[in-house]
Amino acid sequence: MRFKFPLIAIGLEVAMIVLYGLFVQYETEQKNVQQLNTTKPSDTDRFLELYPLFQNVHVMVFFGFGFLMTFLKKYGFGSVGINLLIAALGLQWGTIAQGVLHSHGQKIHIGIKSMINADFSTVTVLISFGAVLGKTSPIQMLIMTIIEIAVFTGNEYLVGEIFKASDIGASMTIHAFGAYFGLAVAGVLYRSSLRRGHENEESVYHSDLFAMIGTLFLWIFWPSFNSAIAEAGDKQHRAIMNTYFSLAACVLTAFAFSSLVEHRGKLNMVHIQNATLAGGVAVGTCADMAIHPFGSMIIGSIAGIVCVVGFKILTPLFATKLRIQDTCGVHNLHGLPGIIGGLASIVAIAMGASNTYSIAMQAAALGSSIGTAVVGGLITGLILKLPIWGQPPDENCFDDSVYWEVPQRDHNNHFHGHGNHNQLEPEV
Amino acid sequence: MRFKFPLIAIGLEVAMIVLYGLFVQYETEQKNVQQLNTTKPSDTDRFLELYPLFQNVHVMVFFGFGFLMTFLKKYGFGSVGINLLIAALGLQWGTIAQGVLHSHGQKIHIGIKSMINADFSTVTVLISFGAVLGKTSPIQMLIMTIIEIAVFTGNEYLVGEIFKASDIGASMTIHAFGAYFGLAVAGVLYRSSLRRGHENEESVYHSDLFAMIGTLFLWIFWPSFNSAIAEAGDKQHRAIMNTYFSLAACVLTAFAFSSLVEHRGKLNMVHIQNATLAGGVAVGTCADMAIHPFGSMIIGSIAGIVCVVGFKILTPLFATKLRIQDTCGVHNLHGLPGIIGGLASIVAIAMGASNTYSIAMQAAALGSSIGTAVVGGLITGLILKLPIWGQPPDENCFDDSVYWEVPQRDHNNHFHGHGNHNQLEPEV
Amino acid sequence: MRFKFPLIAIGLEVAMIVLYGLFVQYETEQKNVQQLNTTKPSDTDRFLELYPLFQNVHVMVFFGFGFLMTFLKKYGFGSVGINLLIAALGLQWGTIAQGVLHSHGQKIHIGIKSMINADFSTVTVLISFGAVLGKTSPIQMLIMTIIEIAVFTGNEYLVGEIFKASDIGASMTIHAFGAYFGLAVAGVLYRSSLRRGHENEESVYHSDLFAMIGTLFLWIFWPSFNSAIAEAGDKQHRAIMNTYFSLAACVLTAFAFSSLVEHRGKLNMVHIQNATLAGGVAVGTCADMAIHPFGSMIIGSIAGIVCVVGFKILTPLFATKLRIQDTCGVHNLHGLPGIIGGLASIVAIAMGASNTYSIAMQAAALGSSIGTAVVGGLITGLILKLPIWGQPPDENCFDDSVYWEVPQRDHNNHFHGHGNHNQLEPEV
Repeated sequence: MRFKFPLIAIGLEVAMIVLYGLFVQYETEQKNVQQLNTTKPSDTDRFLELYPLFQNVHVMVFFGFGFLMTFLKKYGFGSVGINLLIAALGLQWGTIAQGVLHSHGQKIHIGIKSMINADFSTVTVLISFGAVLGKTSPIQMLIMTIIEIAVFTGNEYLVGEIFKASDIGASMTIHAFGAYFGLAVAGVLYRSSLRRGHENEESVYHSDLFAMIGTLFLWIFWPSFNSAIAEAGDKQHRAIMNTYFSLAACVLTAFAFSSLVEHRGKLNMVHIQNATLAGGVAVGTCADMAIHPFGSMIIGSIAGIVCVVGFKILTPLFATKLRIQDTCGVHNLHGLPGIIGGLASIVAIAMGASNTYSIAMQAAALGSSIGTAVVGGLITGLILKLPIWGQPPDENCFDDSVYWEVPQRDHNNHFHGHGNHNQLEPEV
Repeated sequence: MRFKFPLIAIGLEVAMIVLYGLFVQYETEQKNVQQLNTTKPSDTDRFLELYPLFQNVHVMVFFGFGFLMTFLKKYGFGSVGINLLIAALGLQWGTIAQGVLHSHGQKIHIGIKSMINADFSTVTVLISFGAVLGKTSPIQMLIMTIIEIAVFTGNEYLVGEIFKASDIGASMTIHAFGAYFGLAVAGVLYRSSLRRGHENEESVYHSDLFAMIGTLFLWIFWPSFNSAIAEAGDKQHRAIMNTYFSLAACVLTAFAFSSLVEHRGKLNMVHIQNATLAGGVAVGTCADMAIHPFGSMIIGSIAGIVCVVGFKILTPLFATKLRIQDTCGVHNLHGLPGIIGGLASIVAIAMGASNTYSIAMQAAALGSSIGTAVVGGLITGLILKLPIWGQPPDENCFDDSVYWEVPQRDHNNHFHGHGNHNQLEPEV
Repeated sequence: MRFKFPLIAIGLEVAMIVLYGLFVQYETEQKNVQQLNTTKPSDTDRFLELYPLFQNVHVMVFFGFGFLMTFLKKYGFGSVGINLLIAALGLQWGTIAQGVLHSHGQKIHIGIKSMINADFSTVTVLISFGAVLGKTSPIQMLIMTIIEIAVFTGNEYLVGEIFKASDIGASMTIHAFGAYFGLAVAGVLYRSSLRRGHENEESVYHSDLFAMIGTLFLWIFWPSFNSAIAEAGDKQHRAIMNTYFSLAACVLTAFAFSSLVEHRGKLNMVHIQNATLAGGVAVGTCADMAIHPFGSMIIGSIAGIVCVVGFKILTPLFATKLRIQDTCGVHNLHGLPGIIGGLASIVAIAMGASNTYSIAMQAAALGSSIGTAVVGGLITGLILKLPIWGQPPDENCFDDSVYWEVPQRDHNNHFHGHGNHNQLEPEV
């Protein structure tokens, strides 16, 4: 860590500045040049109209995802801090990566849409981060950010431009992609000594409340996530309404199934923090289609159930049988609901909710998203496995003090708690 | 709790899906059918204009109210979790209940306005939840949600359509209604063994900070609450400005009176968390009237004072004399300021701030809101008193561990604190 | 504190109500009077367009700044509570102070722009509050609010109307001004007994996470801060985009330099909480100019570095050599980046990014902002030094319990930690 991390971070930022100096300009400059006698409102004119949607997405990316991962008792700094680092690098790199593919050799033009899309591209990495949380170094996350966003952009281009599939809320291209990419990385980075869990891998009362702040802001702003890049008008309205109802429905089934599967019918905070969001993921792909409110409620209900059951059954199974340790359970929140999203779009098209998209291409989009994610994740995992990136030793996993200055008395006494009454120091 | 809660929750969600399948469609479908040669912008065209206001209200409902109630040291999960459950069920049911009354036998059309109104309808239940917080089961809250929103919708129809009274920020129909409904329920559910308080019914340092996050987001977004359904143009602007100034004024009087009434002039977090919001409640009814900025500041100042004094004098009195235990003091934040709001509208109309509304009808609206709330609350309380809803035993009131899996070491040692130095376990 | 504080607070609120009754009216009233045959959209017509930007600024002022200061382990109530008190008084007074200077003897008209500007004016005080945090009484902060906003308004008028300098994101007039005002006050109020630090002047694990919530909401909404009062169209879009990229860039350099300057390459939460925001401050002055995205990234990168180095080198130096104790390090986050902002605007104009502003006048604006701040701060400091404002004794600095009722067991045992195993009380 001593010099590698700062030098890599500075090197990446210098590279970004050079790339932006060479290739990027404001969308408004373009407009001033191309100012044709057109009456069609340009994206620029929708700037302030879309800006609130962008801001909601921005809250989700930088606050929601970061705090959702603070549930671990000793990894709050790493969760919100590295989340910020990944997203800040990711949005700069995502703007370039997406711009290159869409600029057709011209300058890359940035505006409100590119800002929203850049934020979106970082979400894939934040999801994958959840799978390897507590077991990786900041340097590894910088590397993953660069690779994953490049792969994501390629797949997104394939899905949108070649397959011409619909994925407005990105259930497949962001959520399923990010989850399976992260699971592949986690599989390669498997640590056998953590097989039976780790004493740090648990929450305390207040860390669960911090995580719930993240959950709620994600929940509240998810309709903006699924509608931000939708076509203005009816489709955008539908994307908002469908997500609103899907999320509401999945809360009910998440609570119900959390109580059903848990010991003595109690509710489990892990389920509530995650499964109440599964409806937002699952309705993403067909959010702007005419699936009717009750259709989105059915999708949400199923997603809530699947997510809870995933946490109860699949996550332990993955850890023991598949040797994949998924810290945040991203497979349950993003992987499975992302697949549900893809399948739902196929059903919706089959039932006539949209006549501009093809079932085969939706299926191809789902397959391509999972396929490129797994391949990209495996390659990334092999690169991250090189023993030169300052990985944390097994015994210090899920512990901020490896990479962060942690309030000392707090950490030694309050959290480690190895004190006995002879050494009893002031509690903080 | 074992099967009752999940079955009821699933049953309610299935019922909602069936109702939506039968009766609900997108507003945009209606528009496409009715597309008359009209130049008047429809609600649909205002969708993205109103969406930021909706999002602010959404933050208040799902985040603000939930975290405002996390002040109890051991009831944070229940506060934010059940808040989310109530609101998610409530918005689905509120859409139906309000839609039936306004659709005149046609399909119910959903759009941005119906989403705002559905969110509003849930607020009544969230307020009542505050009165019985920590003393009820999740099942009881599901039942209360269904009944209270139905009664609320009836009263709202009476106030708006029959009396044609003004209540744009809903001081009477939401705040006073929710408070007195909750107080009536709390009265019926009175537990004599809690007469002298309960050891769990107090805050810790960090739980007060969590609650303050809730307070601040409510405070910041309250202008959107009072203006979201106001008439576009001058009235909507006024609703925003009046609420902005009323809230600012009530902060000053809340701080002043908190210091005045407390021991040695210290400030009390309970007052700050609540009374700084009273100005938003009290200015609600006449927020869109031309009451002048100084008028809204007077209303806010009075509300801040009344709320602090209510916490100091009325809450203990209610608990001992009236046998009503009001956990969050909703009478002080919503009940009294709601009445002030109704009275302020009468004064405002008498002074000429509006010539479209009648004093008598405002008084009728206030009376009807309180009357239906008390009657509805008493009936609801009697239903909730049936000993079949998994109520918590007296000794486990205000304790998450009845209905939630709670981090174990944390709960036993850190919060219960029954450890002595022989049993000293690691603190977490 | 017993009666002085409440009486002063009530007196100020009464004064505000009288001033508003005499001098303030809604902007919409003005419009109705002046209704000329104009086709230019008035500010009123932009109300709902600007409202989301206002709400973002509102979140920053009341939530972001307040929680950014909760990093101290025992001063969370004071940080968010007094932040709210200052801002609530400040926005009322700022509306008047700014209105007087711009109304030219007419009534003061309030609308969305005046609300944004009033919020802005309070930020100067909130920044200065950070310099003296934990060492002052609520009364002193009320007095500072009144004086500082008056001085700020004068300087802002000078900069904008006389010098006609550009400072759209207020790097100079708000950030540098607020920082140097606060430093001057802190210098006058120097407490020699705190020279070697204070046992309360440190964070605990969860207080650092609370502060990070503040940081993130400031970070996310800063583009709105820098663009809220920009000219509609290209300039406003540029202000948003430049701030977005400047902030992203400064995150990378802040992380890199935090690791570089710290012991064994670890990251320091103080740096991350503050330096990741420095890019927003520094890009403020020239945010709406055509500085190109890579220009804003260079500005952000430099600001992130300077802020971290400032915390590492300057803050200790200030405390020991200059006898200025800067609790929150506002010099590093607002002072230095504010100066960078002023200098950046000079470089930008020299390089042709704007042809409507003059280099000399930008320099004059920077000098005037710092000069009036220092003079105003010194005078304010002398007034606040009078031993009649209920200042906290040295040993109780950075401790909420001087002015707040604090949960008792919590405070005595959990935070003071003077317990030994004989007195071991339940931990809370």
